[in-house]
Amino acid sequence: MSSIRVGLVGTGIFAKEKHLPAIQSIEGSPLKITAAYSRTKAKAVEFARSAGFDESNVFDSLDEILNNKEIDVVDALLPCQNNLNTIKSAVAAGKPICVEKPISGNMSDAKEIVHIARATDLPILVLENFVYHIGVAKVQELLPKIGKVVTFIHQATGPFNNSNKYLATDWRKNPTHVGGFLLDGGVHQLAVLTELLGEVEFVSAHTSQVRELSGDVDTVASTFKMKSGSFGTYTYTSALGACEKTNKLQIFGTKGSIIYDYSPKQGGGKIILQEGEFASESNEPFEVSLPVEKYGGVDSEFANFADAVAKKDKSLLKCSVERAYHHFAIVYALVYSAQKSGALTVVEDA
Amino acid sequence: MSSIRVGLVGTGIFAKEKHLPAIQSIEGSPLKITAAYSRTKAKAVEFARSAGFDESNVFDSLDEILNNKEIDVVDALLPCQNNLNTIKSAVAAGKPICVEKPISGNMSDAKEIVHIARATDLPILVLENFVYHIGVAKVQELLPKIGKVVTFIHQATGPFNNSNKYLATDWRKNPTHVGGFLLDGGVHQLAVLTELLGEVEFVSAHTSQVRELSGDVDTVASTFKMKSGSFGTYTYTSALGACEKTNKLQIFGTKGSIIYDYSPKQGGGKIILQEGEFASESNEPFEVSLPVEKYGGVDSEFANFADAVAKKDKSLLKCSVERAYHHFAIVYALVYSAQKSGALTVVEDA
Repeated sequence: MSSIRVGLVGTGIFAKEKHLPAIQSIEGSPLKITAAYSRTKAKAVEFARSAGFDESNVFDSLDEILNNKEIDVVDALLPCQNNLNTIKSAVAAGKPICVEKPISGNMSDAKEIVHIARATDLPILVLENFVYHIGVAKVQELLPKIGKVVTFIHQATGPFNNSNKYLATDWRKNPTHVGGFLLDGGVHQLAVLTELLGEVEFVSAHTSQVRELSGDVDTVASTFKMKSGSFGTYTYTSALGACEKTNKLQIFGTKGSIIYDYSPKQGGGKIILQEGEFASESNEPFEVSLPVEKYGGVDSEFANFADAVAKKDKSLLKCSVERAYHHFAIVYALVYSAQKSGALTVVEDA
Repeated sequence: MSSIRVGLVGTGIFAKEKHLPAIQSIEGSPLKITAAYSRTKAKAVEFARSAGFDESNVFDSLDEILNNKEIDVVDALLPCQNNLNTIKSAVAAGKPICVEKPISGNMSDAKEIVHIARATDLPILVLENFVYHIGVAKVQELLPKIGKVVTFIHQATGPFNNSNKYLATDWRKNPTHVGGFLLDGGVHQLAVLTELLGEVEFVSAHTSQVRELSGDVDTVASTFKMKSGSFGTYTYTSALGACEKTNKLQIFGTKGSIIYDYSPKQGGGKIILQEGEFASESNEPFEVSLPVEKYGGVDSEFANFADAVAKKDKSLLKCSVERAYHHFAIVYALVYSAQKSGALTVVEDA
């Protein structure tokens, strides 16, 4: 396979700490980061050194990256408000592009991105690493064993981390995107939930802002009615007082249950399956411990992106732009519902 | 203290297995079961033998119990639809009365019972043993340590027990009361939740009937907005496929968290308190194991009832009729909300 030369845009924390090492870790991957652009040029130069490409490939604008024939694809890590324009420009330049989640900061941008993605054959990937977790695939494999899903409880609760390095980033301190950390962090959990249980039809939600530093609402408790007919609850907050950080999806079916615990203390995660139709006919719980994924699925998403690019087949992307849109649209519905005291709010289609 | 002679009405499973031994277990208690009435006289006769009173004190009607000067108070274990008339008659006869939860099977009866209770000085107690659990008092004591309550998750989930002896009772098989097992079992959980977090202002709920044997809806997932301003989720179902039976209330505050786990496998229950305002300032979790309560609080509620009767002071009752009404009114709101696809539904005042 000939190499795929990546121009990376936005050389911040996540680029250095995750994208670069994850891409470098993929064995035999055609992806090579060969160029970069950042608003603060010094950062991009530093990044070039870490990535091992020449400083002459640090550019002064996104356009220079897009117009450069020596760059095949774009990897953009920008505040989500920039995603629409970045994607538009990349598509105009004929370059496949991946952008960091969330898909965007507002509904109209998010919808336009879906329309752009539908109209082009170029692979466009909104990077959502949680979809690529080994645990998600494993739960998917086990789900048919528990019969029809009756209800679920998704709990993502954690203490407020006032030394969180992401808190200091400008676009988070003064957010113009919908939903603050409910979007920023919460799309991950919503990706897991919808990957396993399908799309959300409508929600009812309450939100609050517990911490001033959050910049916007940081806590949500809600119910989801799913398109499949099942329903359940979804709680997301990292703004609490001391508590054990927990990411846990419990799925209850007519013939058993699955607990997918992907809390940090579980390492790669843990799945508990219990089968049986009645209390009196319950099998012993069956536990699966999942391996720690060093790059948290970021390597898998880039491998997937590379595959779609190499084969010029956008349908190979595991997480379509429509799905990334749906994750965003759920947050939008949660925030809207909470503003109306919890009124039922349909998750809009693109 | 002179003895308080109890006429017991409805000598079914719970009378034999809980009321009788619990009352007999209270050291130095003035309560003595000295008479009984049951629709099926043979059952009452059998009960008299177990309780150790003469068969001549097995009566043929509630009225005979009420009009008997040798009986001081009434303990009624009847289908909840009967509670209004039973209470009305007892008050007319000047006898204090306790009745098993739930307060009633419909809203208008429930409200009338509240009005009757307000208008009389006689102690009237709706028996809700969960309010008397040692764990509830312990959580109440610890709550101020976690600051302002932000959100909570109440999970009551269990596998369907198709050999549940209570399933066979007529009034459950062909329910005329609201909410089926959501009321029958669920008022216990709602009693715990509201005892600790105050009254519920409004709800949004989804329900389903998973098991035909349940006779009515048996599963609910919902959000609660509390009068205090906090909010959270409430899931109740014992109609699932295999899973670990769980009763757990997690309360998250600005300065810490409390997990009150009163699942059967925890024995008397377990409380985990964690204090601290930030992730970086979290104390180690502090765990309290609670003793197994042999009668599940039924002994404590009778001790409380006896105290109020002896002192002729209804204000001594730990769980007022208003509170028992509120537990019922929440279930009513849940069912109503679910019938309207989850529409916001205010929990009515009496």
